[in-house]
Amino acid sequence: MKKRLFSPGPTPVPERVLLSMAEPLFHHRDPAFEEVFREVREGLKYVFQTEQDVLILASSGTGAMEAAVVNTLCEGDAVLVVRGGKFGERWAEICEAYGLRVVPVDAVWGEAIDPILVQRSLEADPEIRAVMVQACETSTGVLHPVKELCDIVREREDTIIIVDAISALGAVDLPMDRWGIDVMVAGSQKALMLPPGLSFVALSEKAWRFVKRSTLPKYYFDLEAELRSQRKNQTHFTPAISLVVGLREALRMIKEEGLQNIFERHKLLARAVQEAVRAMGLELLADSPSPTLTAIKLPSGIDGQELKRRLEDRYGLIVAGGQEHLKGRIIRIAHMGYFEPSDILQVVAALELELKGMGYPVELGRGVSAAQKVFEEADL
Amino acid sequence: MKKRLFSPGPTPVPERVLLSMAEPLFHHRDPAFEEVFREVREGLKYVFQTEQDVLILASSGTGAMEAAVVNTLCEGDAVLVVRGGKFGERWAEICEAYGLRVVPVDAVWGEAIDPILVQRSLEADPEIRAVMVQACETSTGVLHPVKELCDIVREREDTIIIVDAISALGAVDLPMDRWGIDVMVAGSQKALMLPPGLSFVALSEKAWRFVKRSTLPKYYFDLEAELRSQRKNQTHFTPAISLVVGLREALRMIKEEGLQNIFERHKLLARAVQEAVRAMGLELLADSPSPTLTAIKLPSGIDGQELKRRLEDRYGLIVAGGQEHLKGRIIRIAHMGYFEPSDILQVVAALELELKGMGYPVELGRGVSAAQKVFEEADL
Repeated sequence: MKKRLFSPGPTPVPERVLLSMAEPLFHHRDPAFEEVFREVREGLKYVFQTEQDVLILASSGTGAMEAAVVNTLCEGDAVLVVRGGKFGERWAEICEAYGLRVVPVDAVWGEAIDPILVQRSLEADPEIRAVMVQACETSTGVLHPVKELCDIVREREDTIIIVDAISALGAVDLPMDRWGIDVMVAGSQKALMLPPGLSFVALSEKAWRFVKRSTLPKYYFDLEAELRSQRKNQTHFTPAISLVVGLREALRMIKEEGLQNIFERHKLLARAVQEAVRAMGLELLADSPSPTLTAIKLPSGIDGQELKRRLEDRYGLIVAGGQEHLKGRIIRIAHMGYFEPSDILQVVAALELELKGMGYPVELGRGVSAAQKVFEEADL
Repeated sequence: MKKRLFSPGPTPVPERVLLSMAEPLFHHRDPAFEEVFREVREGLKYVFQTEQDVLILASSGTGAMEAAVVNTLCEGDAVLVVRGGKFGERWAEICEAYGLRVVPVDAVWGEAIDPILVQRSLEADPEIRAVMVQACETSTGVLHPVKELCDIVREREDTIIIVDAISALGAVDLPMDRWGIDVMVAGSQKALMLPPGLSFVALSEKAWRFVKRSTLPKYYFDLEAELRSQRKNQTHFTPAISLVVGLREALRMIKEEGLQNIFERHKLLARAVQEAVRAMGLELLADSPSPTLTAIKLPSGIDGQELKRRLEDRYGLIVAGGQEHLKGRIIRIAHMGYFEPSDILQVVAALELELKGMGYPVELGRGVSAAQKVFEEADL
């Protein structure tokens, strides 16, 4: 059966990206590769909305999260971590592994963090050197208020804000320079429409000053060494060449569509899913849902793991279940990157069928027609 | 012009491997991916010649080198590093970045380390916890005496041997278990015939005991966490899915040919290049040349950088120059992975032409015929 990815990473990779990666490899010191690298560096600045260098690493997104930590901080530093899901917890785990003092600010899973809580924590603990947050918390589908947090952190000379934009960048408006994001981290396998294996990190001038004083150990993820090499359109260590070639193609697609159009498309797709969910009598998990994925609370009696299995077995649709205490209680449908309205119609219609098949009283067509109306009104 | 890679990484990727990576992605928690993962885990054990788990990381080879260090050692530990080229120096740099005390044992670039020197150093400094060496030092084409070093280290309960097999594994016989290699590191873009972006590391039981006491910080490269996940045919973080799919195809090719046949093929290819070099009146840099690449000393008056450029411009052949103080003075021709006798005939013939074109007095056909004779005698 044809598999259709609605998982929040990996996401579907466009055919032209897949084919570009199947071309014979060239050498990473070849001028032809340097030309590719120059182009992707420019394209990444466009997507990050920054004048800073966006560094490319051969790792999955967690590697770039670790790079953000070990390059800007010192042993014993205090850091404020917004924890409202599995990836907030990952920030804390990385920091603890490197001997940092973690000050957690917790949100209920499914709720966006209240910026006031962060502000109070910062005021209570002047030693905090960094605030870490997800733009989109993948485990809950929540969009955290990054802009408001940036406004709070900007006032503090000795504190930076580090944003995990892995499940958001390229689908959600995150203007790094304009908002004052100090470190922004991304991965290849989300809205950037690539297989996993590349990650990205960009630093503000303020964050580069933190790099100068950072004493945490690093070698593979040494961003100063990478910056020196990448400014020459090379990498410090051997790059994941085929993925970088694929990235060029994906970034060309992004430029062709235009960032603003992409943001609007994601909002539209998300609204269609959200309306369908409501029309089916279900609720969203997130109080501030991300345009990149929708987490749906399941009615009692409907097991999320079974629903996920049925969608895969009968329709080839790969959605995600819940993690940790949400296992079985939600499903997550991603719509970031290479997605169009027809994908949404497909997943909503299948979801409706399977919910009904599992005994949930839903009239076939209720959810689909709600999604259809969103597209009709958008006058596609 | 068609580019032909004779560089020691990246190396040519077989068409069937490239095409396998162009297939639509599946999800890394999908049973179909777990089946791929199970198969590559078995295949890697075959190539590593080990019963231990071979862990797969999303990084280039240096990441796995760092993983080997940070998972087995403690801050302040003394380590013996065999330095006879750029990659020996890399071991030292990684160790220094993590606050280890590096005891260098130096070889002249181009010479294999004398095991006696290592033995004496170990005897003089009983605090040494690890010996680090390259199987093949890529910057010089030297094969270090790994077996002899293993025999020395085996006697010491509190010392392990860590071998960088990046430019050797899958082309040179390195029976991890039989020789007693404690940690072996490899990368995807060498004899494993893949693009860069994956690295591999396997640990002996003795090395896993070192992991228990290791206190160096790690998160992305935490091998215990990886072991737990990979034994379930998953990875701790999102794997580089498309490269893992390519790896399956490459490992199938390796199994089809058979490791022993592959070792013999590499010896034959190397002998043909070596004979050609001698017939042209040139010398090898390495006193113990690796079957994976051949470093050739250039006569005075022949600039290696120009030779490299001419080979690329006129024949599309990508060879490597010298690094550091050898820049311009040698060229390195790799023949690891997807190489056959016809590739050798091609590169030797072009080399002869360009050396003559640059004023070196060589009779056309001298080198080629020496290589031809090697193949003739092998009765292909």
